[in-house]
Amino acid sequence: MHMRASEDELIAAIGKVLSGAGPGVVVGPGDDAAVLARPSGELVISADVLVEGVHFDLALTSARDLGYKAIAVNVSDLAAMAASPRAAVVTLVLPTSTEDAWVIELYGGMREACDEYALWLVGGDLSRGPAVSVSVTVTGEVAPGRAITRAGARPGDILVVTGRLGASAAGLRLALDGRAPSTALDRALLRAHFRPVARVGEGGALAAAGATAMMDISDGLALDLSRLCAASGVGARLTVSDVPLADGATLDDGLRGGEDYELLASLPDLGSVHAARAAIADTFGVPLTAIGEITPDGLTAVTDGREATLEAKGWDHFGGA
Amino acid sequence: MHMRASEDELIAAIGKVLSGAGPGVVVGPGDDAAVLARPSGELVISADVLVEGVHFDLALTSARDLGYKAIAVNVSDLAAMAASPRAAVVTLVLPTSTEDAWVIELYGGMREACDEYALWLVGGDLSRGPAVSVSVTVTGEVAPGRAITRAGARPGDILVVTGRLGASAAGLRLALDGRAPSTALDRALLRAHFRPVARVGEGGALAAAGATAMMDISDGLALDLSRLCAASGVGARLTVSDVPLADGATLDDGLRGGEDYELLASLPDLGSVHAARAAIADTFGVPLTAIGEITPDGLTAVTDGREATLEAKGWDHFGGA
Repeated sequence: MHMRASEDELIAAIGKVLSGAGPGVVVGPGDDAAVLARPSGELVISADVLVEGVHFDLALTSARDLGYKAIAVNVSDLAAMAASPRAAVVTLVLPTSTEDAWVIELYGGMREACDEYALWLVGGDLSRGPAVSVSVTVTGEVAPGRAITRAGARPGDILVVTGRLGASAAGLRLALDGRAPSTALDRALLRAHFRPVARVGEGGALAAAGATAMMDISDGLALDLSRLCAASGVGARLTVSDVPLADGATLDDGLRGGEDYELLASLPDLGSVHAARAAIADTFGVPLTAIGEITPDGLTAVTDGREATLEAKGWDHFGGA
Repeated sequence: MHMRASEDELIAAIGKVLSGAGPGVVVGPGDDAAVLARPSGELVISADVLVEGVHFDLALTSARDLGYKAIAVNVSDLAAMAASPRAAVVTLVLPTSTEDAWVIELYGGMREACDEYALWLVGGDLSRGPAVSVSVTVTGEVAPGRAITRAGARPGDILVVTGRLGASAAGLRLALDGRAPSTALDRALLRAHFRPVARVGEGGALAAAGATAMMDISDGLALDLSRLCAASGVGARLTVSDVPLADGATLDDGLRGGEDYELLASLPDLGSVHAARAAIADTFGVPLTAIGEITPDGLTAVTDGREATLEAKGWDHFGGA
């Protein structure tokens, strides 16, 4: 049996884990709303929700990893706009069976990610409910007119991707297997799934190199590439053998596995690819790989010199049929 | 049997209901994040989640009212800071049994409230889950240094409240009774519960009149007053007979019923009370009532000339014990 804190008491305990007043935080957690100093650029805002049984399994993830991931996947959306993170608010739904210590650990993981991405956790809300869900809204800033949307890709642009794909899907498979991780590779794959990295600096470097369109790969390369093409009103030709796969990942993991949170971008020419690659490799030690090109229409994949339709299929949290 | 839209299809249908590009919306819904023009003041941000079975019952509320309320209760938090609404993002968790038409109606209600409060709905996320939950984050603006927190009340300040209290609790009781509303009063009480009004203009008028502290009453006057006192490090003496009750509401509804979303504020003197009352009555036709005063410490209620401890008890979504 454990004591159940009332809402105000739990919020006070959480308050000790939160970021508190940082630079630019005029009013922090605990009031009706938080107040932040006037942004120096345009305001970028995004929200994602993670739901027990859909996005995570409480038997597989620790509270700390879940908190970390909930922040990181949202920061990834800021990175995809070439924005700098500023502040986050979180609404949390918890079953009555959830231990307060688990909740504090969850906030500890959120705080850890916030520290890593220079983000301030300034408020939110708590409620009871039938399953754990963690809804995060992040705000960031970008110089006026400098946000990179999905909509600017033009035929002839070169498609690039940061990092290597498929590690998250391979890590999830490993976690579902249930055996203890025995190698450094196992641990790297599990980490890719439970502690994804948001490519904030890389997004800035791609924008500086002239990216015409950008997004993060959350639902698999094939599906997300189709979304970038739809937003830009263009097509794409993907060179399958050039898709950089993570060690331990299959081609299907790389094309259709979700939650890699690498950046997919289009760049206008080889010079901009070289510039972006140099900046990203030098500063972050992360590869940048050309994987195809933007075409006027259609979505195709070239395998062994043969071109075929690329099925825009991947992770859909809403399911089909 | 009904066709189930995939996530992208449902999002496209929702997109038609959303606000689209308004003044100050640089990038609207559909990209990795939304982009808003640089705010002219400080950024105010707040989030609240409404969960099926905790905050609402799908058998009692319509999708449209639920959407409206989810926005209004969040705007109320901006009003409590004396901020002007700017943009909202929504994350929605839906069981597989939810009809797409219901979801579109929900967004219709959100859109209606956004139009009423000059708020732009610029993005969000959808997920499956075991129960409906609607998490809304709102952003607003306030002139630098002009946000009114809960923390500035000083002994001697006069406590005021907008509107009349208890209508939401009385409306919920009526809805739970299950009989059809038969009078104008019945309809007004139901409306108070299902379509609460955020006091945005009133918050601005209270700030202009010199409010030292302010909050919205979401969990009942007694509990929320205790929170304002705790944040300010003061006490309060409430004159029970002065608490303005809505027609059809009991004293308990007024003191401990939740979800009225009226504003509770402290003002430094009678002159500022008169100024705020005149502005609010003239412009909005809403009463402003003095209900007590701020004291150095303790929380008491005066009834028939006798002073007793006011129990800080009200609506706690997290329950006790």
